[in-house]
Amino acid sequence: VTVRQVDVRAGAGDYPVMVGRGLLRRTAEVVAGRVPGVRRWAVVSDSRVAPLHGRIVHSALEAADLALDLLTFPAGERNKTRTQWADLTDRLIAAGLGRDGGVVAVGGGVTGDLAGFVAATFMRGIPVVQVPTSVVAMVDSAVGGKTGVDTPAGKNLVGAFHPPRLVLVDPDTVGTLPRPERAQGWAEAVKHGAIVDAAYLDGLAERAPALLDGDPETVLEAVLRSIEIKAGVVGDDEREAGRREILNFGHTVGHALEAQSGYRLPHGSAVSLGMVLEARLGEALGVTDAGTSDHLARALERFQLPTRLDGPGGAALPDALLLRDKKVRDGVLRIVFLARPGEVAPAPGAPAAWAHPVDRESVRSVLGPEP
Amino acid sequence: VTVRQVDVRAGAGDYPVMVGRGLLRRTAEVVAGRVPGVRRWAVVSDSRVAPLHGRIVHSALEAADLALDLLTFPAGERNKTRTQWADLTDRLIAAGLGRDGGVVAVGGGVTGDLAGFVAATFMRGIPVVQVPTSVVAMVDSAVGGKTGVDTPAGKNLVGAFHPPRLVLVDPDTVGTLPRPERAQGWAEAVKHGAIVDAAYLDGLAERAPALLDGDPETVLEAVLRSIEIKAGVVGDDEREAGRREILNFGHTVGHALEAQSGYRLPHGSAVSLGMVLEARLGEALGVTDAGTSDHLARALERFQLPTRLDGPGGAALPDALLLRDKKVRDGVLRIVFLARPGEVAPAPGAPAAWAHPVDRESVRSVLGPEP
Repeated sequence: VTVRQVDVRAGAGDYPVMVGRGLLRRTAEVVAGRVPGVRRWAVVSDSRVAPLHGRIVHSALEAADLALDLLTFPAGERNKTRTQWADLTDRLIAAGLGRDGGVVAVGGGVTGDLAGFVAATFMRGIPVVQVPTSVVAMVDSAVGGKTGVDTPAGKNLVGAFHPPRLVLVDPDTVGTLPRPERAQGWAEAVKHGAIVDAAYLDGLAERAPALLDGDPETVLEAVLRSIEIKAGVVGDDEREAGRREILNFGHTVGHALEAQSGYRLPHGSAVSLGMVLEARLGEALGVTDAGTSDHLARALERFQLPTRLDGPGGAALPDALLLRDKKVRDGVLRIVFLARPGEVAPAPGAPAAWAHPVDRESVRSVLGPEP
Repeated sequence: VTVRQVDVRAGAGDYPVMVGRGLLRRTAEVVAGRVPGVRRWAVVSDSRVAPLHGRIVHSALEAADLALDLLTFPAGERNKTRTQWADLTDRLIAAGLGRDGGVVAVGGGVTGDLAGFVAATFMRGIPVVQVPTSVVAMVDSAVGGKTGVDTPAGKNLVGAFHPPRLVLVDPDTVGTLPRPERAQGWAEAVKHGAIVDAAYLDGLAERAPALLDGDPETVLEAVLRSIEIKAGVVGDDEREAGRREILNFGHTVGHALEAQSGYRLPHGSAVSLGMVLEARLGEALGVTDAGTSDHLARALERFQLPTRLDGPGGAALPDALLLRDKKVRDGVLRIVFLARPGEVAPAPGAPAAWAHPVDRESVRSVLGPEP
């Protein structure tokens, strides 16, 4: 089995992302080699992933006498809560996990965020290994060290930076996902191409059928390139003080659309719409080359992702939702724009600023109802 | 007003501890100078400290247009919970605190730990300024970056390392404490002398009457020396991988005694007993110079702290309680011993090890009932 590796720089020390087919069954040897100080690993998975992949990881660790329990929680974003975090923590304590223990998070973004936050706060922090099994977790959430839970007031309002000690990606797990969920994940990969690598963007569009099918070799190459791109960005700026902001492309509008829908609009669809609309806004403001939004829309449509606000929800995107964005400073909305496909446009003035201040009238003119 | 300063090294950046009489009223200017990026500070205090000192800090910030709310929670260690943490977090969100906000923790150890953990996890971490107003918080808990809450299974099982951006110490606040609480705090200062500085240890004993009275000038000098000692130790070893263990002197036995009492024995009393008993154990094992335990006991008695296990609780200290200690490895109890007053004894074998493995029989022979 060939294993490919990307190293991610982090304040607390670099960590490797290892990508290879069939890696789940080799969890024990990789973990023992890379994080030798940990005596017992607790595996955390949701109720959907535990029987598919969680137990494979747990069995591999058990065979090497490195396993504690396999803990499961009910699947779904609505369980990414402080209550579930406290419950998992108490179960780890009851199982006897100590300061010389660690957590392996096996699953999608919710599992990585929740189990990562459990590890971040367990006896003031124990190692976590991320084993993303969804496309979005592989290309996005498992790398970068963000962990956390939602509160009634909003998503990810409580959390911590807790970089994993190791990320294990087995592209074979993508085959078990429902097809629409795969499509959702590729939206973030398209974003990576859009901000950094036009050839990757076009390559994704070309290979969309195989990627939607979950063909492991095609998935492996795409995931690897996305991780390289994300690792390059977060390695320079772990805590989102500067260049990490470019990963927010598509997300200012995307998050607002998600909130507007009461979180019924899936995240990938929201980001897909957000990228096209932010590109259109950038074109209207003269920051983004003409044709960029159409270029993105064509790529996203290959993944059957939405690119037009024709639905009833699209008629009016209230300013208030946009102004909740974390990049807002002094009440001014700030958005990351592309210069063209594969390249972001630096913000005026500051050499290391990437989010452009935008007046609300311009936003309204673009985000109004379609003709 | 003279302000004295100690700088503490931390992984995320150094921070200053500023010590001076009347500093509380100058919170705004110090905070604005030292943590200029923060637009709004929320002040967190318990129900006892808020009317005494919390509102002074809040008023000072308000006058400089830097204040958000003054949030209070019910005083007492039993409120250092995840529930209280979630409640404070939700109130901060409701008050409009954002990623450009910060938390000022004004109070004793419980407030510092709880409000520090709120700041550590608020939107993945916002700055915290620690304003310790009890002796134990000044000499011990406000410096070092440990934050957290208790769970039903034990103390500080959930938490994070989140070094403050600034620590403000105003020794005038010590005058408002009940006298027995001051005595409790000086136990940790005696420990600092015991492990690092025999002259400081003896100076504390000599000045015990003024320190118990809360005389501000005497308090200032003692607090400053304790902070220097603690800063020197934690600066080398923020995450307790090595030398920070020496701060555990007196705490292996002390924590067990606390647990045995159902946490009715106050922490300072437990550490006082723990230091004398660990010194006696060290003498019995030939690691600690004869007479060290008596030397410590004389100093601690000047603060009216307990030094003898004559009570009914002293008759038998179950192994199980000692084995809960975080320094236990592979079921072996490990204890930090003094060589003599002012100096710890390095553990055999490892050059950077400070906790000595101890067999349970030796422990039982010393911790058995007094003759």
